[in-house]
Amino acid sequence: MVKLKSKPILAIDVGGTKIRLALVSDDGTIVSSKQYPTHADKGYQEVIKRITNGIEQIVIDSKLSLHDIRGISVAAAGIIDSRNGIITTSPNLPDWKDIPLKDILVDSLGLDVYLMNDANAAALGEYHAGVGKGIKNLVYITVSTGIGGGIVIDGELYTGTDGCAGELGHMVIEADGPQCKCGNYGCLEILASGTAIAREAQKRINQGDKSLLSNLVKSCEEITARTVSIAAKKGDLVAIEVINKAAYYLGIGMANIVNIFNPEMIIIGGSVSKMGEMLLKPARKVVKQRAFNLPTSSVSIVRSHLSDDSGIIGAALCFIENEAENCR
Amino acid sequence: MVKLKSKPILAIDVGGTKIRLALVSDDGTIVSSKQYPTHADKGYQEVIKRITNGIEQIVIDSKLSLHDIRGISVAAAGIIDSRNGIITTSPNLPDWKDIPLKDILVDSLGLDVYLMNDANAAALGEYHAGVGKGIKNLVYITVSTGIGGGIVIDGELYTGTDGCAGELGHMVIEADGPQCKCGNYGCLEILASGTAIAREAQKRINQGDKSLLSNLVKSCEEITARTVSIAAKKGDLVAIEVINKAAYYLGIGMANIVNIFNPEMIIIGGSVSKMGEMLLKPARKVVKQRAFNLPTSSVSIVRSHLSDDSGIIGAALCFIENEAENCR
Repeated sequence: MVKLKSKPILAIDVGGTKIRLALVSDDGTIVSSKQYPTHADKGYQEVIKRITNGIEQIVIDSKLSLHDIRGISVAAAGIIDSRNGIITTSPNLPDWKDIPLKDILVDSLGLDVYLMNDANAAALGEYHAGVGKGIKNLVYITVSTGIGGGIVIDGELYTGTDGCAGELGHMVIEADGPQCKCGNYGCLEILASGTAIAREAQKRINQGDKSLLSNLVKSCEEITARTVSIAAKKGDLVAIEVINKAAYYLGIGMANIVNIFNPEMIIIGGSVSKMGEMLLKPARKVVKQRAFNLPTSSVSIVRSHLSDDSGIIGAALCFIENEAENCR
Repeated sequence: MVKLKSKPILAIDVGGTKIRLALVSDDGTIVSSKQYPTHADKGYQEVIKRITNGIEQIVIDSKLSLHDIRGISVAAAGIIDSRNGIITTSPNLPDWKDIPLKDILVDSLGLDVYLMNDANAAALGEYHAGVGKGIKNLVYITVSTGIGGGIVIDGELYTGTDGCAGELGHMVIEADGPQCKCGNYGCLEILASGTAIAREAQKRINQGDKSLLSNLVKSCEEITARTVSIAAKKGDLVAIEVINKAAYYLGIGMANIVNIFNPEMIIIGGSVSKMGEMLLKPARKVVKQRAFNLPTSSVSIVRSHLSDDSGIIGAALCFIENEAENCR
């Protein structure tokens, strides 16, 4: 049995590709964690089943029961109505429309549940326990299946009128660009996310471009952002060009953020950020070329320190805050 | 002589096209005002001369002396380093590069001087005395020669790390669009400002499009956003199309703001906003099509109430705040 001073929070990060669950102590330490594929394509009821199964499993594996859990904090990709615990829409969980996830989990588990946006949670995690510790004005961008954002202003999460501010991935940077899953056109997400990187690489291979990528997968559709990253590290030109293209758009998105927020730090998290400098170096160059000098000279553009754990840690910390004052 | 309970503040709004000066009392009431063309093309020294001449003139006309003035608050278009009182750069005042305007005015007038961004001043003016009164989270956009922005969060102006946040006009919405005066490409300003409207209308006439616009001016170069507005009101199709195009881009910029800030209100000010619903109606439609439903349903998109005075009033109020605590 896990030894803890007080009851742990069960924090869950529901992304377009994977569900991560963790037991987190009051101070933000992860006690144990688990991960499952989301299988968003199988529909929201299946995803909810996977979440509740995951909850039961992590509790059992830790030799605990639900009574030992302080509450559940879910960080999910999408437009979240935190006040009412509803996922109103989620570009990467296609059939999630006004799903009252909080009530569903409360009813089935009998625990307190808090629901928030995943990138907001990650921003808060980095601010309290990661690379953004003590940085009062920072912007967090998660580049993964989609692109999300979280804004910390004066040391507090800025969530706006309905609690859904920070949708930086759905900032248009190409007015007449390709249609995004959110319905809008030319969003940062459709141009620079992991999905965009995979799509572009697949297009290049289908066009007949010679690349290592073809050797790394059985069929072109299997190419992911991770495959592109592996090929680029081996010096593959097509893969490098694909990453540079995403970095170009990410750089434009960040230049916008620099001009709009004049932040002290931009933190890049999410699975695609694991490419590190290969993505960040060309993106920083674009920021320097495009944003005003004064705010550019003040901003650090860095990788997340907590990596996959930032959302989990932030969600747990926000649950605690929310218990006290409803987490804004 | 003007009768006032206490010394008035001399507030000055320096835009790309005109300089407005006003004596403002503590409570934000404009006692008297004057306006001059900026003549930015004649160079910054000439503009500064016009500012100081304007100051002398308004003081003389009000039968006051400089000793009767509490201080000077300048709201200028550009990237302002408020802490040091420097205009670092200004897309619509082309040769203004690191001009220490505060020190120049202090030296020549011997009064306290505060320097801030014009759209920030206007946002604050609308929040304290205009249509945004009591709206804790609002975004102000000025559409004029250029496009500027001011962000009010939790009832306070958000100015970022260096005091230059809110450059909403220099948010890229067309990655490979035309080059903006700021050096960046596809900025909202180059696509939807008054200058953009005039340029587009001139292009249409030069292409040989038949339009009332040709009757309203002696030569095509004389067409301004105002001319376009007049022609559109008379039902001129070319003028209406030109305004719709600007509204399309303004709508995309506002959709971005809705997705990023989830604000309660977006206030549109600046000379071009005087077109009213002709510009705002199609722009609102674009927001509805492009931004997420939840934040779209919460936001009011309205015209400035203080019109040309919002910057002046905001600058004066910020001077008072700054006297007390350095206006952030």
